[in-house]
Amino acid sequence: MEKEKKVLFTETVLRDAHQSLMATRMSTDDMLPIVEKMDEAGYYALECWGGATYDAAIRFLHEDPWERLRQIRKRAPHAKLQMLLRGQNLIGYRHYADDIVDRFVGKAVENGIDIFRIFDALNDTRNLKASLEAVKKYGAHAQLTICYTISDVHTIPFYTDLAKELTEMGADSICIKDMAGILTPKVAKELIPAIKAVIDVPLNIHTHATSGVSQMTYMAAIEAGADIIDCAISPFAEGTSQPPTESMALVLEELGYSTGLNIAKLEEIADYFKPIRDKYIASGVLDPKMLSVDPKALIYQVPGGMLSNLNSQLKQAKASDKYEAVLREVPRVRADLGFPPLVTPMSQMVGTQAVFNVLTGERYKMVPNEVKDYLHGKYGKPPVPVNDNFRRSIIGNDAVITDRPADHLEPEFARLKAELGDLARTDEDVLTYALFPQVGKAYLQEVYYPTIPEEQAEIKAPSQGETAESVIRIQARYRS
Amino acid sequence: MEKEKKVLFTETVLRDAHQSLMATRMSTDDMLPIVEKMDEAGYYALECWGGATYDAAIRFLHEDPWERLRQIRKRAPHAKLQMLLRGQNLIGYRHYADDIVDRFVGKAVENGIDIFRIFDALNDTRNLKASLEAVKKYGAHAQLTICYTISDVHTIPFYTDLAKELTEMGADSICIKDMAGILTPKVAKELIPAIKAVIDVPLNIHTHATSGVSQMTYMAAIEAGADIIDCAISPFAEGTSQPPTESMALVLEELGYSTGLNIAKLEEIADYFKPIRDKYIASGVLDPKMLSVDPKALIYQVPGGMLSNLNSQLKQAKASDKYEAVLREVPRVRADLGFPPLVTPMSQMVGTQAVFNVLTGERYKMVPNEVKDYLHGKYGKPPVPVNDNFRRSIIGNDAVITDRPADHLEPEFARLKAELGDLARTDEDVLTYALFPQVGKAYLQEVYYPTIPEEQAEIKAPSQGETAESVIRIQARYRS
Ligand SMILES: [Co+2]
Ligand SMILES: [Co+2]
Repeated sequence: MEKEKKVLFTETVLRDAHQSLMATRMSTDDMLPIVEKMDEAGYYALECWGGATYDAAIRFLHEDPWERLRQIRKRAPHAKLQMLLRGQNLIGYRHYADDIVDRFVGKAVENGIDIFRIFDALNDTRNLKASLEAVKKYGAHAQLTICYTISDVHTIPFYTDLAKELTEMGADSICIKDMAGILTPKVAKELIPAIKAVIDVPLNIHTHATSGVSQMTYMAAIEAGADIIDCAISPFAEGTSQPPTESMALVLEELGYSTGLNIAKLEEIADYFKPIRDKYIASGVLDPKMLSVDPKALIYQVPGGMLSNLNSQLKQAKASDKYEAVLREVPRVRADLGFPPLVTPMSQMVGTQAVFNVLTGERYKMVPNEVKDYLHGKYGKPPVPVNDNFRRSIIGNDAVITDRPADHLEPEFARLKAELGDLARTDEDVLTYALFPQVGKAYLQEVYYPTIPEEQAEIKAPSQGETAESVIRIQARYRS
Repeated sequence: MEKEKKVLFTETVLRDAHQSLMATRMSTDDMLPIVEKMDEAGYYALECWGGATYDAAIRFLHEDPWERLRQIRKRAPHAKLQMLLRGQNLIGYRHYADDIVDRFVGKAVENGIDIFRIFDALNDTRNLKASLEAVKKYGAHAQLTICYTISDVHTIPFYTDLAKELTEMGADSICIKDMAGILTPKVAKELIPAIKAVIDVPLNIHTHATSGVSQMTYMAAIEAGADIIDCAISPFAEGTSQPPTESMALVLEELGYSTGLNIAKLEEIADYFKPIRDKYIASGVLDPKMLSVDPKALIYQVPGGMLSNLNSQLKQAKASDKYEAVLREVPRVRADLGFPPLVTPMSQMVGTQAVFNVLTGERYKMVPNEVKDYLHGKYGKPPVPVNDNFRRSIIGNDAVITDRPADHLEPEFARLKAELGDLARTDEDVLTYALFPQVGKAYLQEVYYPTIPEEQAEIKAPSQGETAESVIRIQARYRS
């Protein structure tokens, strides 16, 4: 009877696993030799693009992200290729105009993407609209995403309402994205049946192993009706990455679930990636601390990455003794800002504001520009409205955007193409420039004028995950 | 209602966690400053002695294991201190006479041990008898152990019969010891209620996170009625160690279980051990590979440590291409030998015999002396009797011990004390010499005659876990 129950697996080793463990530094050369095997292993999907992969490819690896995608597609004719898209932010760090969104999605489909996992940091569904429309227009699969967070307002009814809205918008599947690894078995047991009851499309659960509960959370989620889980092949599993593909598959098969996975092929894939993992450990790219467990995220209900950012900001300010005070300030700032999920860019804004509030000794004496933009409505709608008096105390009587933020953006593709001049040889080039004006332009110059001296390329220090650029911006402003 | 359900935690960071992750190399100095905090955290027990700790202390750390125990006891007046005892092997590598067993247990109680987890590699209960009697005599808690393994004969009824026998012998609690990390949720769901039904003492589950299923196995075990689980504080958790204490406690408390643990204190303990873990990683003592997942044990139903031993034996013999052939030979050898559990020393015997059988091209052309001793009955009774013809083909018509092997051993304490001469200043010294004749004597010479040149101390290369001495012996014999 139970044998009829299916669980599908999305493999993250080509995207989230190395993004989470080693700041997205896996090279295309390390991926391609095994892609054919991955194509045959029985996965539901291979997550292989989006998130920070594009940024890391042009910024650190000096690789063409589009060429990586085409090469993967060529070797995986059967598997569904999946990418992570930050809604109106695409894979960059600001809201882009709708024409850029349309072009980007079109090109991603053309180069090989089948499934788009689309999320907005505020769960503001208006920020998903343009990418959803584009995905539909180009005939791909739109997986709309619930960013999971914990707060007074993020209740089961809040999430079921959101899930219902995403289905009504036309989601082909729904993802619960637990970017911080704080979804627990208890909550999964309650949340998943509630969501399944209001949707008629597959439900995908995404978590991270960081806090040492993810295997249990997946098991509870599956028992509660989840259809798809995200796992990483064992050499790149656990720690800040996902639970191991083979282990989850073996356990579930033994319990009578059908996964469609071929264990022998998974083992070959693991054997392939093991020396690659060891190579990145030996070269220092993969810090072994990333492989270990840190339950602090679970204790403070704050993502682990945010905790370590706060810690290092306070160290830089020689105020490490204020750590507990800042941790107590975080939920207060979050409440003031309408309980945003603690994901990029909100985790940086909330964290930096909490640090400011504690270090200056006066709440909101100093406010980063990003927080002001947020209060102007430029990022979208907070989960609950911000108190009017609070807002006025920060941005006075400035006008506030209450409709879709991107409605205020003029088309920009043609302008950017013109700006880029003879570096704009393909639409992909223009997108690279649109998404990463400085780094993208430097990259294109490297490609088309390889003799140009190195120092023109803007090289930045490695930093963790998707948060790179915005953390740097906020910290730069703090120092200035 | 569920709130009444209790789960108790045994903390392994002072014994199994560092034994599994870094070959038992944690120094007493790294333990003592946090023991008072551990005493207050609400653990059921602190596993802190036995296993390979004694050997590693005198062999590699040049530390007095008894002094470590006394110092821990002094700082933990409330907590129960637990040790791992290999039945008639105590913490050494052969069967010792009953008088040694009695003295050792007596001294362990005197120096601070409350709970003895006693196991025999063959699950031959006669090998537990002398230590059980001694533990009772000195008024401590005897936790008798089922070594969990997978084979045709290790069925649920096999284990329930064993559990019943252990209870009848007088076990104060029972442990299911899954040394290889191959106990799955499915089996836990069946095995644990079956065992609980025939015992009236608490049931403790011990597993390792190696194959990436342990969180799920613990959860299934607890739902099925397990009373105590073994966990490691997060910096020394996962990988080849146990699941993280804080994570399991948080998840279980949220599900309505009462753990008795103080999360704030656990966090302080984790904060203490994090830089210690990082120090051992930086110095190379903790190989980061030990922190990662390897589901191969689950696939081959063979402990991970045995797989890597086989791999390195074959590499040394320049026969890496025979790996698959050896893996196929392992279950055949195991069947020939009556399906022994694959734990020290049986895992080494079975593995080496399988290598011999494949490399010589003729099964049992070459047989290690340990296997011959085993067939003579010197290790005890196999789970099922060895075929007579098979035995005769190896050891001819030699007499076979069928009663308790230790009944054939003369008392040895007095003799060894005399042998040791003026190095025998305490009973503990005699035990050190009894357990580790060469290394122990060298250690005592260092202690009492510190001017004696270094080269008299027998220094061996680090090797993994409990298996150190016997693997080296078997490999040495193979080479000679
Ligand atoms: Co993720
Ligand atoms: Co163990």
